[in-house]
Amino acid sequence: MRAFELGKFGLDGLSIVNRAEPKPGANQVLVKLRAASLNYRDYLMVSGAYDRRQALPLVPVSDGAGEIVEIGPGVTRVKVGDRVCPIFRQNWIAGPYRAEVRSTSLGGPHDGAMMDLMVLNEEGVIKIPAHLDYVEAATLPCAAVTAWNAMRVDSDVAPGEFVLVQGTGGVSLFALQFAKMAGAQVIITSSSDEKLEKAKKLGADFLINYRSQPDWDKQVNKITEGRGVDHVMEVGGALTLEKSIRSTKLGGQIALIGNVSGSVAQLSLPLMFMRHIKFQGITVGNRLSFEAMAQAIAAQKMHPVVDKVFPFEELPAALAYLAAGAQFGKVCLQH
Amino acid sequence: MRAFELGKFGLDGLSIVNRAEPKPGANQVLVKLRAASLNYRDYLMVSGAYDRRQALPLVPVSDGAGEIVEIGPGVTRVKVGDRVCPIFRQNWIAGPYRAEVRSTSLGGPHDGAMMDLMVLNEEGVIKIPAHLDYVEAATLPCAAVTAWNAMRVDSDVAPGEFVLVQGTGGVSLFALQFAKMAGAQVIITSSSDEKLEKAKKLGADFLINYRSQPDWDKQVNKITEGRGVDHVMEVGGALTLEKSIRSTKLGGQIALIGNVSGSVAQLSLPLMFMRHIKFQGITVGNRLSFEAMAQAIAAQKMHPVVDKVFPFEELPAALAYLAAGAQFGKVCLQH
Amino acid sequence: MRAFELGKFGLDGLSIVNRAEPKPGANQVLVKLRAASLNYRDYLMVSGAYDRRQALPLVPVSDGAGEIVEIGPGVTRVKVGDRVCPIFRQNWIAGPYRAEVRSTSLGGPHDGAMMDLMVLNEEGVIKIPAHLDYVEAATLPCAAVTAWNAMRVDSDVAPGEFVLVQGTGGVSLFALQFAKMAGAQVIITSSSDEKLEKAKKLGADFLINYRSQPDWDKQVNKITEGRGVDHVMEVGGALTLEKSIRSTKLGGQIALIGNVSGSVAQLSLPLMFMRHIKFQGITVGNRLSFEAMAQAIAAQKMHPVVDKVFPFEELPAALAYLAAGAQFGKVCLQH
Amino acid sequence: MRAFELGKFGLDGLSIVNRAEPKPGANQVLVKLRAASLNYRDYLMVSGAYDRRQALPLVPVSDGAGEIVEIGPGVTRVKVGDRVCPIFRQNWIAGPYRAEVRSTSLGGPHDGAMMDLMVLNEEGVIKIPAHLDYVEAATLPCAAVTAWNAMRVDSDVAPGEFVLVQGTGGVSLFALQFAKMAGAQVIITSSSDEKLEKAKKLGADFLINYRSQPDWDKQVNKITEGRGVDHVMEVGGALTLEKSIRSTKLGGQIALIGNVSGSVAQLSLPLMFMRHIKFQGITVGNRLSFEAMAQAIAAQKMHPVVDKVFPFEELPAALAYLAAGAQFGKVCLQH
Repeated sequence: MRAFELGKFGLDGLSIVNRAEPKPGANQVLVKLRAASLNYRDYLMVSGAYDRRQALPLVPVSDGAGEIVEIGPGVTRVKVGDRVCPIFRQNWIAGPYRAEVRSTSLGGPHDGAMMDLMVLNEEGVIKIPAHLDYVEAATLPCAAVTAWNAMRVDSDVAPGEFVLVQGTGGVSLFALQFAKMAGAQVIITSSSDEKLEKAKKLGADFLINYRSQPDWDKQVNKITEGRGVDHVMEVGGALTLEKSIRSTKLGGQIALIGNVSGSVAQLSLPLMFMRHIKFQGITVGNRLSFEAMAQAIAAQKMHPVVDKVFPFEELPAALAYLAAGAQFGKVCLQH
Repeated sequence: MRAFELGKFGLDGLSIVNRAEPKPGANQVLVKLRAASLNYRDYLMVSGAYDRRQALPLVPVSDGAGEIVEIGPGVTRVKVGDRVCPIFRQNWIAGPYRAEVRSTSLGGPHDGAMMDLMVLNEEGVIKIPAHLDYVEAATLPCAAVTAWNAMRVDSDVAPGEFVLVQGTGGVSLFALQFAKMAGAQVIITSSSDEKLEKAKKLGADFLINYRSQPDWDKQVNKITEGRGVDHVMEVGGALTLEKSIRSTKLGGQIALIGNVSGSVAQLSLPLMFMRHIKFQGITVGNRLSFEAMAQAIAAQKMHPVVDKVFPFEELPAALAYLAAGAQFGKVCLQH
Repeated sequence: MRAFELGKFGLDGLSIVNRAEPKPGANQVLVKLRAASLNYRDYLMVSGAYDRRQALPLVPVSDGAGEIVEIGPGVTRVKVGDRVCPIFRQNWIAGPYRAEVRSTSLGGPHDGAMMDLMVLNEEGVIKIPAHLDYVEAATLPCAAVTAWNAMRVDSDVAPGEFVLVQGTGGVSLFALQFAKMAGAQVIITSSSDEKLEKAKKLGADFLINYRSQPDWDKQVNKITEGRGVDHVMEVGGALTLEKSIRSTKLGGQIALIGNVSGSVAQLSLPLMFMRHIKFQGITVGNRLSFEAMAQAIAAQKMHPVVDKVFPFEELPAALAYLAAGAQFGKVCLQH
Repeated sequence: MRAFELGKFGLDGLSIVNRAEPKPGANQVLVKLRAASLNYRDYLMVSGAYDRRQALPLVPVSDGAGEIVEIGPGVTRVKVGDRVCPIFRQNWIAGPYRAEVRSTSLGGPHDGAMMDLMVLNEEGVIKIPAHLDYVEAATLPCAAVTAWNAMRVDSDVAPGEFVLVQGTGGVSLFALQFAKMAGAQVIITSSSDEKLEKAKKLGADFLINYRSQPDWDKQVNKITEGRGVDHVMEVGGALTLEKSIRSTKLGGQIALIGNVSGSVAQLSLPLMFMRHIKFQGITVGNRLSFEAMAQAIAAQKMHPVVDKVFPFEELPAALAYLAAGAQFGKVCLQH
């Protein structure tokens, strides 16, 4: 079978090799992967910026989707023919994030989705909503589960509440879709009016171009009549954090998800006390939350936003395209 | 000003009298009431079935809506001209239900909405969403706040989850609307196919006629693929409770709201342990939850379902109509 | 190895047989059991009252403790020499109670602790606190985890709060100990002044003999100055439930744990609404909660209350002793 | 009556003046203050560092205790002779922190406890536990309520859990006492071995001198066997925050309370995501939480730690003593 291997860090360290076809053991399933989807973590992993101690060669990319083509002895959760996504951290089935589930993620340290066949424990997959194709399904395991956890597991976005979504990256667009699904009012920021218009079509209620309105927190307060939003999906990082706090209502919550503008922020502690602010670092989520999300996506017939689909062989180009940052929605690959 | 007084228990104990116009004191507001809306509690109160120790005369009916026409010294929360609803328990502003807020409700023990002018503490009103008229607003204080609390304060209905709504009474229709607003899937029961069709138009996903399907819990399990619903809005009471439990998923929640079919239920305790079921008795809610609900209703431009509007003078006829139980939506009065 | 087998329902259906020594497979451990402890469920299971469809022969008794004497390939969580308890539901590691963990319990449907050697998945054991001997440790898996979940997972007993504990059975004494550990005030009921005095030595703050004070709910209200308790550990069942509700504060919580006086209770629904009462059925708990509890027991050097230890061979006598109900604390067996 | 007035910012801006005795109006009580207690906020307020826009003259100091000597018309919650503490934010009775309760605090913007008589709304006081004298009671409104909220309202410290308490200031010692009351294990840090020994006598389980062990986070991880603590009471601020995160378990919680070493911290965002950390800014708490705390203090017969009691007239000396930072426990005044 084909596998993309990262032999050394860097886009030019990627090459397609031939690997022996794996076989499922007891309680394992064999998945024929049909699609993959990229997260920024994949780019960092390949470039070596994520963790230089990562053992190589590595089959990169965390998120994929495929079909079960064989099951090992004892498998009862799924059957041959089921369309599934591997979950990101293979051991994180339920309960809180904890040491024992920490280092079981696909696309590093473990081999990821850029190969034709993958063996997984039967516990490590979820069933794909019927109305999604493989490419759409491949967008879910990291980006969508992260957005879902920020809004439904580590918080509880309610109808009528205000949710501030930063930017139009993968997690942000899922956050927009999930917030609208939950009846909330969404304020979204971007540096591009064109992207803002696309976000509006997805349901965004209020649009802020943070380039033309650098004091966007003032705009947020105006929209919310001085009260501030209930929830922030913080992906901006170093340069947005203080404005995020100033955009949040007393007692509100900020989900820390990304660090696009830098990873070390200046945090004003009195601002945290005096506004009774909560921060919650988000790190994807467990399988039960993925299953609940899949049920919601199915019930609402929601479609993830796919920007572009590259053929399997063009992984380096797809990663470069992702890194350039011009996309609106997920960058995917078809096997 | 006009006031409907209950001089003795029974519909024929109601009469319109003339009362002196009240004046607002410090921190009080004077509300010119424009509409009222009936709950079954009002019928019980008037008929004497609710509490025979209730002091008479009483101005009945808990729920109303009107305009602030005068404010007393020190008032800052609201101003003349504001359109408001009095909250049901006047002292329950925030925090959990507790002894000190217990006996402060309008329509018994305190005078209710069937009069032209009402003096209230400025803390005891909420502002009406702009898109609602007075009749629509008058439906909110008890029925809507009860449904909101069952789903958002004492629970957290999430997108994709299943909510079982029993019947098409006032609380049930609000529960249906709020569940849909939150992205949930709604199963609704009724003895009338006509009412079920109306519920479908309001967004109900699955309809069960419990007359033609007396084993409706089996139907619920079929719809949910054997799993059971996440939430039940239990209004049926004695005759529905066990089927409600059997319709609920392991670890699911049943909001106890009504007792239409009787108030003493046979409860199988092993069913509670073995299914890890939660019951939560619901008793309307505080002002903060009313305000959050009003924000959601405004954001979603939701309209309450009004069945029929009677003129102020026809309160006895309106109560009789309510008691007959043929309505779909709220029975209201216009002052 | 020795195993007690239930060949037919009834105490006389129990006999000791010789079974082949099992070997641990991949990810499995072999535990040499040293002690077991009885729950009423064991008595019901043996007598056939729990589930007559239970396949026989069955090795009875859910709770045990022992030492790991061998590990299979791939085991990393534990090692040879570790002192462990098997968890009650072998698949319930983390997260909410759900269908997939439901039928994985020891002592029925699966073989339980009344044998010398037991093979378990490495995920299905917890490490015993160092200060406990095997007999003490064997009391934990069902009774203690049930009490812990009622107070810490499905509720959050806080310092100063009132907890009403019914009776002095296994779960109740653990509830008493955990409530005191959490700084709460405990009111305990019993029909025996002697047992009440023993409970006082364990920390109970207020004692009620429900035989001499049949209106014990009034006594509870007197102790709590009319407010009612924050939490009830309901083990009484049919005959105590209404008094439990009347003993509970507005908005308080009742953990449904047992049905000593009958399993079908008359439930007054208006009492539930008007007091904003919460019921939570309790069904033991997951491994993470067991581990948290073990950490608390270790930190506090808490010792379970052991009433009597029978030799392994005397299981029928031990079960009869348990059923007679005169014990104060757990009835155990030593292998 | 005597009142200490701050006429201009600075310790030398304080002087005792004679003010007319106030009278309670409707729903108000007149409290004869007997003691006061200092928080660092009082020092900042007097020195002008807290808010230079504060209107002067101001009667400083937030926390006091006294006796009700007169009640106005309509008062029902309390009576003459009741021993009470004024709550810090007079309007924050229940529910979440929100705009309408924000600017109602004593000791700035409103007059505080350094006067003989104070008029308050009857809702703005709590009853003092019977075993406490006025000086002890005066320590509660800010420092103790802050610690209680960090541990019981915005989190739920459980038996066996690890709580890291930074330093031995007022809030920290209350946190130590409340954590022990809740059955937790406490790790406490200080630069003074003498203070650590005093903390040990109050129940601290593990002591770390952060001067001799500047890498105290490593020590915390050693104590917790590599897992990290469940809760941190963060009072150190800029220089301790990162070590606090590194001392916290995956998914753990850090209560942001103080900024002793500086108010702007460098926050590593990836550390927040990857460890799934929660921050919660703490800003004292509402009256219901104060009452729950008072009930716990009463049930446990807990005594606050009082370092030194100054006579009323020596407020400037008391503030200077507080600012010097050598105390262990609260600095108080007796009227």
